[in-house]
Amino acid sequence: MSLIVIGSVAFDALETPFGKTDKIVGGAASYISLSSSYFVKPVNLVAVVGGDFLKSDIELFQEHGVDTAGLQIKENEKSFFWSGRYFNDMNSRETLVTELNVLGDFDPIIPEAYQNCEYLMLGNLAPQVQRTVIERLQNRPKLIVMDTMNFWMDIAYDELVKTIALVDVLSINDEEARQLSGEYSLVKAARKIMAMGPKYLIIKKGEHGALLFGQNEIFYAPALPLEDVFDPTGAGDTFAGGFIGYLAKAGDVSFNNMKSAVIHGSAMASFCVEKFGTERLVNLSQEEIDARVQMFADLVRF
Amino acid sequence: MSLIVIGSVAFDALETPFGKTDKIVGGAASYISLSSSYFVKPVNLVAVVGGDFLKSDIELFQEHGVDTAGLQIKENEKSFFWSGRYFNDMNSRETLVTELNVLGDFDPIIPEAYQNCEYLMLGNLAPQVQRTVIERLQNRPKLIVMDTMNFWMDIAYDELVKTIALVDVLSINDEEARQLSGEYSLVKAARKIMAMGPKYLIIKKGEHGALLFGQNEIFYAPALPLEDVFDPTGAGDTFAGGFIGYLAKAGDVSFNNMKSAVIHGSAMASFCVEKFGTERLVNLSQEEIDARVQMFADLVRF
Repeated sequence: MSLIVIGSVAFDALETPFGKTDKIVGGAASYISLSSSYFVKPVNLVAVVGGDFLKSDIELFQEHGVDTAGLQIKENEKSFFWSGRYFNDMNSRETLVTELNVLGDFDPIIPEAYQNCEYLMLGNLAPQVQRTVIERLQNRPKLIVMDTMNFWMDIAYDELVKTIALVDVLSINDEEARQLSGEYSLVKAARKIMAMGPKYLIIKKGEHGALLFGQNEIFYAPALPLEDVFDPTGAGDTFAGGFIGYLAKAGDVSFNNMKSAVIHGSAMASFCVEKFGTERLVNLSQEEIDARVQMFADLVRF
Repeated sequence: MSLIVIGSVAFDALETPFGKTDKIVGGAASYISLSSSYFVKPVNLVAVVGGDFLKSDIELFQEHGVDTAGLQIKENEKSFFWSGRYFNDMNSRETLVTELNVLGDFDPIIPEAYQNCEYLMLGNLAPQVQRTVIERLQNRPKLIVMDTMNFWMDIAYDELVKTIALVDVLSINDEEARQLSGEYSLVKAARKIMAMGPKYLIIKKGEHGALLFGQNEIFYAPALPLEDVFDPTGAGDTFAGGFIGYLAKAGDVSFNNMKSAVIHGSAMASFCVEKFGTERLVNLSQEEIDARVQMFADLVRF
């Protein structure tokens, strides 16, 4: 049940119709780690931050059972920083600032204690860096899940395809699935993308839920209809964290168990969007999670 | 279990990325009648056509258990005609031709034998005409379901609101729900729209399924992920026909039964889009319908 999570740990400054934040903790690996920590401990984090990252923020990860032995701290550099503004519909956003900083030459180090992990979550990062992590593990994990985004399809397509070929589960959104496959029909897109390597494909559709494709099976997970989406940042990463955390806890990577994992990931994501950044994710109880999963079950039962 | 269906019976000329048709039978009431006929017979049709409508097309309705006593035939006029072209994504379309013809001064006549019907389906039409049908029934039906579209929100808002106030279930798509309520969140939109009268609201989301809202309950029905949508014309009407047909057959208008009705409506719509116009709807077996409903059940079970 050991889990490695790689991705960005960063600062975000966010603006939504509901308000704005100064620099707060963000980054794919932050959301994934916190989300998966509700299912499995320790979560073995591989990431890099600068000297500007607060000790108290690292301690917050540790308090949630995140092992930070693989978190490099470059004292004389700055953490990755992203600033963005969401429009009224919350489905579109514009990037205001991107400062790569320490992420520009990120060379992931896998602590010896992380070796022989069974579950590997590759959060959104340059695909060559994601691949480096796979190469630096002495044994191939039982399950490798990869998240990526359109940015890498635009600027690093060949590297992306090489990494996708190595993973078991790919997680992208509907527009990205269409871009990657050149197909509008998601059924056709899934077939083409799975032919690139992954045995399973998750297509995230935001407020419309998510689809899980296996070789000959499809599962449709709803999204919870929400009064308000306060801040969508990190929802996809939180989904991924819940998904792989649930699988790692159960130690079962069958399609049937992946269905439940998708629901648990969706439940975690539905919490994430209720507050800014990781705020809601650091204060969840098992009872709240169980109740939310039950809401998903009730939503589709007929 | 008696059902009245009102709406347009018309000619359509369609163009999709897969091909084009000459004038074929279309119109909301055509799709609704054929779809509901797989659940309940007779379907009591109230509509108007011109002298150009073929006797063989009327007989096709009759062969499916549609009572055409309420179908006015204006021999010296022409049937309503709509021509449209779908774009590659099948989610957007442009209207090429609209000829109101007999629909311009449609005055619905309710045959005496249709009185005391328990279920009334108001297919998309001018809201004042929809309301006339309610007023011409001697007793209020047990359940009135209304479908409408953004067109009436634009040009006949006051009439539309008056009619919506009289119905039990309103069926519209997500963009229409947002337009009608002025709310982006569908949860907030549903609350506002139900405050206008309907006890239940169905929000159709095309390839993303449908939401059924009750006073304190929500149900999320998936759409079947399809290889290809051949022709989306009439899918919403076919959905409505399956929905009210299922309810009329069961004689049960509880929220719980409405969930199953939404699934049956979705299943019927998934057939509709497989071929041009009503082609797939006139050749369905009970076994095919049962198998399709089972696919919906499998799609969301975890």
